[in-house]
Amino acid sequence: MNIGLVGLGKMGLNLALNMIDHRHQVTAYDVNADAVRQIEAYGARGVTSLKELVHALDTPRVIWIMVPHSVVDSVLAEITPFLSKGDIVIEAGNSHYKESIRRYKELKETGVHFMDAGTSGGIEGARHGACYMVGGDPEAWRVVEPLFRDTAVENGYLYAGQAGSGHYLKMVHNGIEYGMMAAIGEGFELLEKSGFEFDYEQVARVWNHGSVIRSWLMELTERAFAKDAKLDGVKGVMHSSGEGKWTVEEALELQTATPVIAMSLLMRYRSLRQDTFTGKVVAALRGEFGGHAVEKAAAASAPPAAK
Amino acid sequence: MNIGLVGLGKMGLNLALNMIDHRHQVTAYDVNADAVRQIEAYGARGVTSLKELVHALDTPRVIWIMVPHSVVDSVLAEITPFLSKGDIVIEAGNSHYKESIRRYKELKETGVHFMDAGTSGGIEGARHGACYMVGGDPEAWRVVEPLFRDTAVENGYLYAGQAGSGHYLKMVHNGIEYGMMAAIGEGFELLEKSGFEFDYEQVARVWNHGSVIRSWLMELTERAFAKDAKLDGVKGVMHSSGEGKWTVEEALELQTATPVIAMSLLMRYRSLRQDTFTGKVVAALRGEFGGHAVEKAAAASAPPAAK
Repeated sequence: MNIGLVGLGKMGLNLALNMIDHRHQVTAYDVNADAVRQIEAYGARGVTSLKELVHALDTPRVIWIMVPHSVVDSVLAEITPFLSKGDIVIEAGNSHYKESIRRYKELKETGVHFMDAGTSGGIEGARHGACYMVGGDPEAWRVVEPLFRDTAVENGYLYAGQAGSGHYLKMVHNGIEYGMMAAIGEGFELLEKSGFEFDYEQVARVWNHGSVIRSWLMELTERAFAKDAKLDGVKGVMHSSGEGKWTVEEALELQTATPVIAMSLLMRYRSLRQDTFTGKVVAALRGEFGGHAVEKAAAASAPPAAK
Repeated sequence: MNIGLVGLGKMGLNLALNMIDHRHQVTAYDVNADAVRQIEAYGARGVTSLKELVHALDTPRVIWIMVPHSVVDSVLAEITPFLSKGDIVIEAGNSHYKESIRRYKELKETGVHFMDAGTSGGIEGARHGACYMVGGDPEAWRVVEPLFRDTAVENGYLYAGQAGSGHYLKMVHNGIEYGMMAAIGEGFELLEKSGFEFDYEQVARVWNHGSVIRSWLMELTERAFAKDAKLDGVKGVMHSSGEGKWTVEEALELQTATPVIAMSLLMRYRSLRQDTFTGKVVAALRGEFGGHAVEKAAAASAPPAAK
């Protein structure tokens, strides 16, 4: 299949390699000319502008956008004037499903099919077999399905239904991921505090062989402990990139109780702070009503130690 | 290896089959004579009392106990008088690790090695390859290791160290399991509320192929939805058998924050009730201070609808 690919970051570049390995003809664009030259050397056709990308493709065009979600709209604004009725745009980044529904409706007005593809499996997946959840028009799906089938792991793609459903599934997938990761982390925290002398790599390994909690995340846990037996080199600061937050916002909007996922998100936020104002207030109150000792901050006028 | 097996319930019986398949000589006892006859037909030697079991084995004896944790002490009390120095008792049920440490110390006084073996993988695992986490004396471990190696999945056993460490790992394993299961459940709850028309079996399937959350639990989720597309036949009452509670109690004792695991346990308790007193109090308070509508219970004097 002829495919236009926008975005040659870590994900896009590996996906391009994957597509080319499966004999798809890739026409690629990125703001970074080095990345374009790199993929040209692997057999893609490189172009120097989005306009050139669109014009290089036969209609109906299939254009795969793999860029940070903050620039999706500007890419769409730039290519839409050159697109024709029946063209298909696949947005495979981590966009909010409501944005995908809006984009679907906007492109629909010009007769262009917009598909939202949630992608899991990381860089390794993009290169050797990803997991896709795809929403959009069924007639467009029939055209692009081979592309997903070829670049996914076996059975690793799903046409999830109407516009937005792909990114919705990816959002919830990440929410589940937050909860699972927190449970694993808390379990090892107990082992670390227990007084037993466990070898965490060995524990993760045995839990990956025949136990109920065997999982890819536990395999990654095993890998992490293999590199650093006590994770001495890793600080317990848990950043997040937004999809866990979206999941909890969605739960609030649906007035649905997802306390475990919500707690896993809130504990990530907690991990970003060395001290909390909550803690100050509670400690102060214990001092006020019970005369309990209050630990003094290093310097009353100093700025917070960490943010 | 010659092995005495006490307990031919679902786990013990399947483990006996697994041991016999691996050419171990099993002498088996159960209060249920039918189960004994069943395993005799497969090649075990059946006995009709614990005393007979002990006397049927050559020293140093290896006795594997696979009974509900409520009867472990009575089995131990019955066999201990007949045991000799150097004998090894393996307790492979779901006991609290502190009980295992106590039993280890008590048997140690008579020169008998006590080993605590946490077992995961369910009935299927007992039959075709379990996952074991084992604590106890290293010299005893060297004797019994072949038995674990043969009946585990490949790499599915770990000598975890001193007495209690096996059941400690199993306890924390189950705590992690609670958190993972809750996260999965909450994710599908959002899908169910979302307004999209997802096919949950297909969603679970795609998440098992290349996604970050692929796991045995997600495979079981897929299997459950394959049997019952919307789980209409299942009530959302989440019972528990104690190890999640032990994990949270351990966290309290260690003063260690495990909010995700704790929340997953508390939400199980919540699921056991149709109504809560918390809810009554909060609803009543909203009525008191804000005049907000209070939903009336079916009959003021009726007993709670469910317990």
